[in-house]
Amino acid sequence: MKSTQISIKEIARLSGVSVATVSRVINNNGRFSEETREKVIKVIEENQYEINSIAKSLRMNKSQTIGVLVPDISNEFFAAVVLEIERFFFEEGYSTIICNTAKNADKEKEYLKTLDGKMVDGLVCISGQEEVLTNILKRKVPIVCIDRRPKVHSNVAFVESNHYEGGRMATEELIRKGCRDILVLTKKNNLSSVNERLSGYMDALKEAGLPVHEYQIVYIDTKKDNLEAAKLAIQNQLDQRISFDGIFATNDWMGLGALLVLQENGYKIPEQVKIVGFDNILISKYCNPPMTTIDQDRVVLANKACRFLLDMIEGNALASELHQVVPVTLIQRHTT
Amino acid sequence: MKSTQISIKEIARLSGVSVATVSRVINNNGRFSEETREKVIKVIEENQYEINSIAKSLRMNKSQTIGVLVPDISNEFFAAVVLEIERFFFEEGYSTIICNTAKNADKEKEYLKTLDGKMVDGLVCISGQEEVLTNILKRKVPIVCIDRRPKVHSNVAFVESNHYEGGRMATEELIRKGCRDILVLTKKNNLSSVNERLSGYMDALKEAGLPVHEYQIVYIDTKKDNLEAAKLAIQNQLDQRISFDGIFATNDWMGLGALLVLQENGYKIPEQVKIVGFDNILISKYCNPPMTTIDQDRVVLANKACRFLLDMIEGNALASELHQVVPVTLIQRHTT
Repeated sequence: MKSTQISIKEIARLSGVSVATVSRVINNNGRFSEETREKVIKVIEENQYEINSIAKSLRMNKSQTIGVLVPDISNEFFAAVVLEIERFFFEEGYSTIICNTAKNADKEKEYLKTLDGKMVDGLVCISGQEEVLTNILKRKVPIVCIDRRPKVHSNVAFVESNHYEGGRMATEELIRKGCRDILVLTKKNNLSSVNERLSGYMDALKEAGLPVHEYQIVYIDTKKDNLEAAKLAIQNQLDQRISFDGIFATNDWMGLGALLVLQENGYKIPEQVKIVGFDNILISKYCNPPMTTIDQDRVVLANKACRFLLDMIEGNALASELHQVVPVTLIQRHTT
Repeated sequence: MKSTQISIKEIARLSGVSVATVSRVINNNGRFSEETREKVIKVIEENQYEINSIAKSLRMNKSQTIGVLVPDISNEFFAAVVLEIERFFFEEGYSTIICNTAKNADKEKEYLKTLDGKMVDGLVCISGQEEVLTNILKRKVPIVCIDRRPKVHSNVAFVESNHYEGGRMATEELIRKGCRDILVLTKKNNLSSVNERLSGYMDALKEAGLPVHEYQIVYIDTKKDNLEAAKLAIQNQLDQRISFDGIFATNDWMGLGALLVLQENGYKIPEQVKIVGFDNILISKYCNPPMTTIDQDRVVLANKACRFLLDMIEGNALASELHQVVPVTLIQRHTT
């Protein structure tokens, strides 16, 4: 590595100036004469000293880099949010480096260490584990979470969709269209986003005077992928001759699984069973029939998170904005 | 930052050993007595010196990090390849950091600099620009490209699908099913992958004794998204009363655009027009009718690229494997 062939101290000695002056010249940071600049540059060139961004980070404790932890980059919703984060920070002069944690707590730890070690100026954590292991970080790095509620911590902010309202809206849409026996397809994973959607479903049923039976809450097998697990779960309901006329699937992949397995069993959608999904991923638009769903505003989520993170980095963050909730929208298509 | 509160030199002085010994203790790298170890650890603990991975990278010129440049992380094919890269290297003890270049040459340059500055041990470049700007890198970093052909350079390898064969197979499938007027939907972007698919199409037509007319090669507007641009391009063919009975779309999104616009115009698929896509993204499986397509083996592509990159990092790479081509498969569904 060329940059370690000669130290900044050595350059200072050879140029006959102080280390601070060499640093100012390298960073083009005022307060030196043109004569000094030329002297230093000459020594640098003669010695092939190259400004290494790591060495620079070490001196300045600022890397102009943002780290993003994402549980699954192949998830369309997460990918769209990451794209927005990258776009936002590039315009602000930051590079964004992305780490995929594969929903694995050990990987999340490793990547937190990696990003900390790379001197990121801020971190965005998207969903995944509920707890952000800030104790792993050796530096005090501002953190914003998207769609996960961190344990209360002074420098961890969070931005999420209004999952509760989404669950309510989805269920109300089914009730409005005449459904009276509404199943919910969901997961046992303790994520606030999933639990809030479920609460919204239950409150909408209660408000409409509909009973909430235990058999209506259908948990899918989280070891399988969403689509296959949802197919199995609904097939199981059919096999048990449990009657239902509506399904709120807490994500679109589960909704598609329900749609496909019902069609395989000869059901007409939406005539016999109505379905509402969640997330508004592209597949919900192009499946047959196109699926009614709840849209999360990825652009607003990402931009609010980025704006707040930048404010934290620059020391301008307002405590009143530590928790921000973004509205969701019902997208009516042909499964209701 | 705690790590700069006390330097390694200072620790050496306080422990009464050499800097090299302190470094060996920190890295747990043999050749020191237990007594020395305890002495150094005590000084470190008393002074809260924490091993900073950047400082460590500077000393060892190895960061156990792989950089990935990807043109669009929201593209399902790219995301799947990135996931495999991350999985491969995590098992080998490397962290993977991902940068999204948004198909923008300036961003690609910035991110190459960023990754170089973060001391990555190797780089994977997925598609995007044809030329890898290795002159931007200050260090000699091994590079593997996936699905893009780099200019010949000693430390740049490349792994790609057999795009030519894919184009041939897609076109042969249409011919086999009775098509005689086959359009190809493609882009003018100078990427080898796209051009190879087009060559395969042309050779298959010639081999079957079918003429290749200029009007059959339909270029979509690359300023629009693939689906919308394909819809416009096929609508334009219909408006001009150009007759055709088959379409080879050089990616699935274009294939879906063709399918939708033909259905909107009252055409029956596959009875009146047959369609083959490329990439085998999920949408091709769940659209209506499900689309015949060419599958690129994402797992094999990623693993071959990673294996070769690791070999380069470890100095074991074979020149004979600098260029590797991965076979593709025809997935027959209901648009042919």
